[in-house]
Amino acid sequence: MVNVYKESLRLHKKFGGKIEITPKVKLKTPYDLSLAYTPGVAEVSREIAKNPKKALDYTCKKNMVAVVSDGSAVLGLGNQGALAAIPVMEGKCAIFKQFAGVDAFPICLDTQDPKEIIKTVKNIAPSFSGINLEDISAPNCFQVEKTLAKILNIPVFHDDQHGTSIVVLAGLINALKVVKKEIKDVKIVINGAGSAGVAITKLLLAYGAKKIILLDSKGIISRKRDYLYPHKKEMIKFLLKEPSEGRLEEALVSADVFIGVSQGNILKKNYVKLMKKDPIVFALANPTPEIDPSSAKEALVKVMATGRSDFPNQLNNALVFPGFFKGLLAGRISKVTEKMKLDVAKALSSLVEKPTSEKIIPSIFDKRVVETVAKAVLKQV
Amino acid sequence: MVNVYKESLRLHKKFGGKIEITPKVKLKTPYDLSLAYTPGVAEVSREIAKNPKKALDYTCKKNMVAVVSDGSAVLGLGNQGALAAIPVMEGKCAIFKQFAGVDAFPICLDTQDPKEIIKTVKNIAPSFSGINLEDISAPNCFQVEKTLAKILNIPVFHDDQHGTSIVVLAGLINALKVVKKEIKDVKIVINGAGSAGVAITKLLLAYGAKKIILLDSKGIISRKRDYLYPHKKEMIKFLLKEPSEGRLEEALVSADVFIGVSQGNILKKNYVKLMKKDPIVFALANPTPEIDPSSAKEALVKVMATGRSDFPNQLNNALVFPGFFKGLLAGRISKVTEKMKLDVAKALSSLVEKPTSEKIIPSIFDKRVVETVAKAVLKQV
Repeated sequence: MVNVYKESLRLHKKFGGKIEITPKVKLKTPYDLSLAYTPGVAEVSREIAKNPKKALDYTCKKNMVAVVSDGSAVLGLGNQGALAAIPVMEGKCAIFKQFAGVDAFPICLDTQDPKEIIKTVKNIAPSFSGINLEDISAPNCFQVEKTLAKILNIPVFHDDQHGTSIVVLAGLINALKVVKKEIKDVKIVINGAGSAGVAITKLLLAYGAKKIILLDSKGIISRKRDYLYPHKKEMIKFLLKEPSEGRLEEALVSADVFIGVSQGNILKKNYVKLMKKDPIVFALANPTPEIDPSSAKEALVKVMATGRSDFPNQLNNALVFPGFFKGLLAGRISKVTEKMKLDVAKALSSLVEKPTSEKIIPSIFDKRVVETVAKAVLKQV
Repeated sequence: MVNVYKESLRLHKKFGGKIEITPKVKLKTPYDLSLAYTPGVAEVSREIAKNPKKALDYTCKKNMVAVVSDGSAVLGLGNQGALAAIPVMEGKCAIFKQFAGVDAFPICLDTQDPKEIIKTVKNIAPSFSGINLEDISAPNCFQVEKTLAKILNIPVFHDDQHGTSIVVLAGLINALKVVKKEIKDVKIVINGAGSAGVAITKLLLAYGAKKIILLDSKGIISRKRDYLYPHKKEMIKFLLKEPSEGRLEEALVSADVFIGVSQGNILKKNYVKLMKKDPIVFALANPTPEIDPSSAKEALVKVMATGRSDFPNQLNNALVFPGFFKGLLAGRISKVTEKMKLDVAKALSSLVEKPTSEKIIPSIFDKRVVETVAKAVLKQV
């Protein structure tokens, strides 16, 4: 791991960042300039002023997504601030273009106040056809996403919520096939009630899950808890009534599925042994999973997935966001819906024809992924 | 001209805009991703969180300029709004990269309130190393620029003011050589008291001009005028006392230089005849100059310049802004100074060794321009 870190620093320094802005038109002669710039561009401007929708034909807005972060929850590193968020957002932008041909630009904000974030994104929205929110901490992320989705006429997608929940559902659909269990029957323990945990809970419920226990760092989310943020409180009515208190080990008794979006090494081997036969474990904390894959194997985990590229079954948002936005932009879709997310998860899972313990999700280098995801999004149009 | 307009529309539609975002690193293997994205990028993020200045080594911020407009004064077209400003800002971004290797991104704002503009630009500033303000109407542009320059630690440059004033001074230095007159002696009439007119007045004064008359659409700016915006009022003490009222024809009597940043066809042939021998006329209104070059010739104008590429002596901001920002970024300079602007104008004029009526300014395709401008900016470091 040390090497990856050193190499990454070296790479970033060598290139001075990972993206650049490139002209698509040539600018070699005065005539070229007269078309791309003055006087020709005046006509383009007039046409758009007359019919604002033409901005989608004539400008880079057509294919442009803002990757917006306030740096408050960068990767698993916590509140790193705007500048330290740039390399992460820039990485997503590089992936957007490389995998889906979508142009994306990193906007890292000098504010962590949700009202300011909302106003700022609203003010810069004309340059973009989609907003990918990223690494904004809970509970602010919920207010920011909800308000922006309401006031903007372009789609808003908080990747930590929806990208993660979609890829988790896709993986779970196939993992359940491997262990021959049904979504409606399985007891699912979700550890972590931030943006990802809450979104996963919602999407699994929408897909038909009936028995979910959700935990935050203080334990099981239930009516017995004193104070809870609204986004946690509103989940209670959808969760299992029992056990209504306790920590991870209480929650895991007879569970079929563990989904961790929390922190490294908190799932002990003996906790796994409390689970039912053929446990499914998604240990998605980054960079250190909730349980090491080798320990999971010793604890007889049947299907194991992480967020990392160096183990089998990488449940990575990059399977979703490039194709998802490709579809949104192609269809000029202005709202992201629950149905869209379910369809994308199903489509993604269907790319693995015969799921096995070692293969529940396609590789992000599988060429079919982006097109399949984009098509599932476009089904809604 | 119709053809340029039609061709420009066709070009913009064909390419769907003029810029795109391109990855600088390859993303072909899981290892590539582990360096450019997780887990490697976590180390880059941590390094920047420890030492924020490292964002300039490790991220695209290093070379990134925001081209910001509220669409309130697009080209000579007036208040066209944010969407109609995109193709113009995008054109500048393409020029930035093509001519100077500077990455630039168009930010078109859904607000024309100066306080909102300031707050929005402040909030997105972490992603950028420079702010190029563009096509923001007077008087808002002055407040926006002044406040942002004060609160940001990256340079702020309002191109309509400073780009224009620098290129006008560069042209005037050489035009005066052609007619063998001295800056301190000549009477200069500047028609148009918006952002460009006021900035030109200030820079010419700083260069040593003593006799300037400034006019807006209502006539000569002087103490006799009833109500004036502060940015016009504060100029009065630097302007010629006489004539203290009247319109363009009164102002032009015995003038040596006319500089128009106003509107097409307002400089009549018989007005030019009121000027001294060997008149210098910079008719910079776009796309239609204040006087047609052929009419100017008939009126015995000695040195004629426009903003257009299809006549000699194109005084175009594109001579300045790419190199100016290249210098600012290379020197990690945080403030734009008056001395910088004067030095750039002198350096630019020096590229024409023997100025003639037909050649007072280098071509924007002259390879020396960007380096010369950047060097002049870097002299300040």
